[in-house]
Amino acid sequence: MIRTVDQHRDAVLGLVVPTAAHTVALEDGAGLVLAEDVTAHEALPRFDNSAMDGYAVRAADVAGATPGSPVHLRVVGDLAAGTDAEPVVEAGTAARIMTGAPVPPGADAIVPVEVTDAGIVEVEVREPSPAGRHVRRVGEDVSAGDVVLRAGSELTPYRLAAVASVGRAEVVVHRRPVVVVLATGSELVTPGVAPRRGQIPDSNSYLLAAAAAAAGARVQRLGVVPDDPDLLAEALGAQYPAADLVVTSGGVSVGAYDVVKEVLAPLPGMSFVSVAMQPGKPQGFGLLPDGTPVVSLPGNPVSAFVSFEAFVRPAILRLRGLSGAALERPRLRARVTQGWSSPAGREQHIPVTIVEDDGEVLVRPAAARGSGSHLVASLAAADGLAVVPADVEQVTEGDHVTVIRIAS
Amino acid sequence: MIRTVDQHRDAVLGLVVPTAAHTVALEDGAGLVLAEDVTAHEALPRFDNSAMDGYAVRAADVAGATPGSPVHLRVVGDLAAGTDAEPVVEAGTAARIMTGAPVPPGADAIVPVEVTDAGIVEVEVREPSPAGRHVRRVGEDVSAGDVVLRAGSELTPYRLAAVASVGRAEVVVHRRPVVVVLATGSELVTPGVAPRRGQIPDSNSYLLAAAAAAAGARVQRLGVVPDDPDLLAEALGAQYPAADLVVTSGGVSVGAYDVVKEVLAPLPGMSFVSVAMQPGKPQGFGLLPDGTPVVSLPGNPVSAFVSFEAFVRPAILRLRGLSGAALERPRLRARVTQGWSSPAGREQHIPVTIVEDDGEVLVRPAAARGSGSHLVASLAAADGLAVVPADVEQVTEGDHVTVIRIAS
Repeated sequence: MIRTVDQHRDAVLGLVVPTAAHTVALEDGAGLVLAEDVTAHEALPRFDNSAMDGYAVRAADVAGATPGSPVHLRVVGDLAAGTDAEPVVEAGTAARIMTGAPVPPGADAIVPVEVTDAGIVEVEVREPSPAGRHVRRVGEDVSAGDVVLRAGSELTPYRLAAVASVGRAEVVVHRRPVVVVLATGSELVTPGVAPRRGQIPDSNSYLLAAAAAAAGARVQRLGVVPDDPDLLAEALGAQYPAADLVVTSGGVSVGAYDVVKEVLAPLPGMSFVSVAMQPGKPQGFGLLPDGTPVVSLPGNPVSAFVSFEAFVRPAILRLRGLSGAALERPRLRARVTQGWSSPAGREQHIPVTIVEDDGEVLVRPAAARGSGSHLVASLAAADGLAVVPADVEQVTEGDHVTVIRIAS
Repeated sequence: MIRTVDQHRDAVLGLVVPTAAHTVALEDGAGLVLAEDVTAHEALPRFDNSAMDGYAVRAADVAGATPGSPVHLRVVGDLAAGTDAEPVVEAGTAARIMTGAPVPPGADAIVPVEVTDAGIVEVEVREPSPAGRHVRRVGEDVSAGDVVLRAGSELTPYRLAAVASVGRAEVVVHRRPVVVVLATGSELVTPGVAPRRGQIPDSNSYLLAAAAAAAGARVQRLGVVPDDPDLLAEALGAQYPAADLVVTSGGVSVGAYDVVKEVLAPLPGMSFVSVAMQPGKPQGFGLLPDGTPVVSLPGNPVSAFVSFEAFVRPAILRLRGLSGAALERPRLRARVTQGWSSPAGREQHIPVTIVEDDGEVLVRPAAARGSGSHLVASLAAADGLAVVPADVEQVTEGDHVTVIRIAS
């Protein structure tokens, strides 16, 4: 009955599909995911242009130029970047040219200004420049009709620039998904409110809201819902029409007051399962009656965070339009500098602190006392999660482990 | 006269100081940087509480419990998380207790519900539980007065949760810096506008605006300013009072129409220098007359991006309140799968594509034709920058290089 981390991740991913595509202004596309292939409608560069500040020449004219025996050419034009002038460079002449300006008719090479006298009327050239030298040829980057970026690509700064460079003012992207976050638990008070005996400040709704925003979602943080079935049903009922995904924390275990499970488990679209993960064993997921996907995480903050990373973050990325390897954070191998134990039969995801030492990545548990799942404050130092396979029970100093970087 | 990459980075960092501190609501603090130490005003956990759903017992009562010889205890209370009830657990009794609920007076251990009959009036216990088992002790995470997070820490989701867990409703953070971005060049047209011969779409203002936003700045993208000294002076004069940093691209080289240099170089606070970097050799930086820092990058898109990463991003992070190693992206070592050449005497920052193969990181140049700095569109595949030391002229398949991950 218990399922692996990968099986549960696939099940949660199966709840969501990418959000609808819409058209936005290019500058509003940063960080969103393309819902179209972006094609170059003309070649890049658009025209032969100079890669240097200097002179456009006929290579044959300067083939014998040396500092001791320079060649003198009459300057027939002055070409700034952006000019549409087309002075013809005939034998014995040159055009002054700036980086990016179109190479004029007749010229086939550029002489950098540094090997000339920088003349305005006549220029002295002291080095040869073979045909094609310092000329960026039309189409050498992209041919007309080439796909510059595929649908499903996240518009990183570099890719946004690529879309701009083919002249697009708008892009078709997936809508940023709306994620509703709520933390359940009668022991929780909003931070700043004085807790009674038995109560603690809510941290999960802040944790999950910030993590969902960092994953690229627009977040509605509902805050705390007490362990009352009616109040929970009301909170879910009021919110889910607007949400692409609802994330709850708490109330999914075997306790007598596990209200999320009590309210949601009877719904036909919902499942509450055990995952072979530590922490994060009890998990809920499914569809609310109106079809809104919901993922119910355990309430312990470390469990909630680890579960978010393993299951909810990939689902948010899929909603955004990403797929395949792009749903995962990069993994790296790291050497352990302080060992810890791991439960048999469960894949452990343990918060670690990463130190880089001359190119080598070193890790140790972020919590001073090992893998305890309740040590919120001492885990503020965590910048990664180490993933320990289910069949490993002891991680020893000097071992290498797989690490997911979660900060920076 | 030529300076190293590190020297220029330090010079640019010297232009900026962290922005002023202000108080924001906790949930608005995500991604900002603390301008105060956050201290726990009480211990965490706040009280001894149960780590399991089960029964609070006296360890001595259940010391001999086995499945064949269970112990029966009278249930004197039912403690949900959040309760303030304090039933006294005397010898021969137990209190039903949920995860997170306060351990009642008299009890010193928790028996998980899984090793009981889950009784309500009387409970049958089938395993012993030594004193302290499954009890989270008051203060085991944090003592009252402990600093939970230091000033200068970025409020990642995890750290935001740590601040919430000590009951803070507000945090004192550095204001998000305002970065003004403009691209200069008479050859540039706004994407979507049909370019004449000699013109190309602006991509730099989109590139730099998105990169600055990804670095945590609030960005004002002014778009394109033509190579006209009056228009450039007007654009700078109109904007700089509001900006923590102005970033320009283009017009910093040795050409006859390098207008940024023409307008800014005469100012006493500005310097235009050569950096031993490829691409990105010509760089401008300094203070405008009103004290606003400005960094003037070369106009070639790849040069602009590499320069942004090397010089502008650390400055934005410093404005945000970060310091030390937090100003740098993590670096990793990667094996080269396709070699390239690098200029002597210049530190090369070359866009690369990163592939992970069973924990090993592999890189190859993102541009099909090597290190050419004008290949914008083909560089959309870049997800890292390889840093090649100044004394290396050839990188060969199988070499290991230092790589900075720029995407994901």
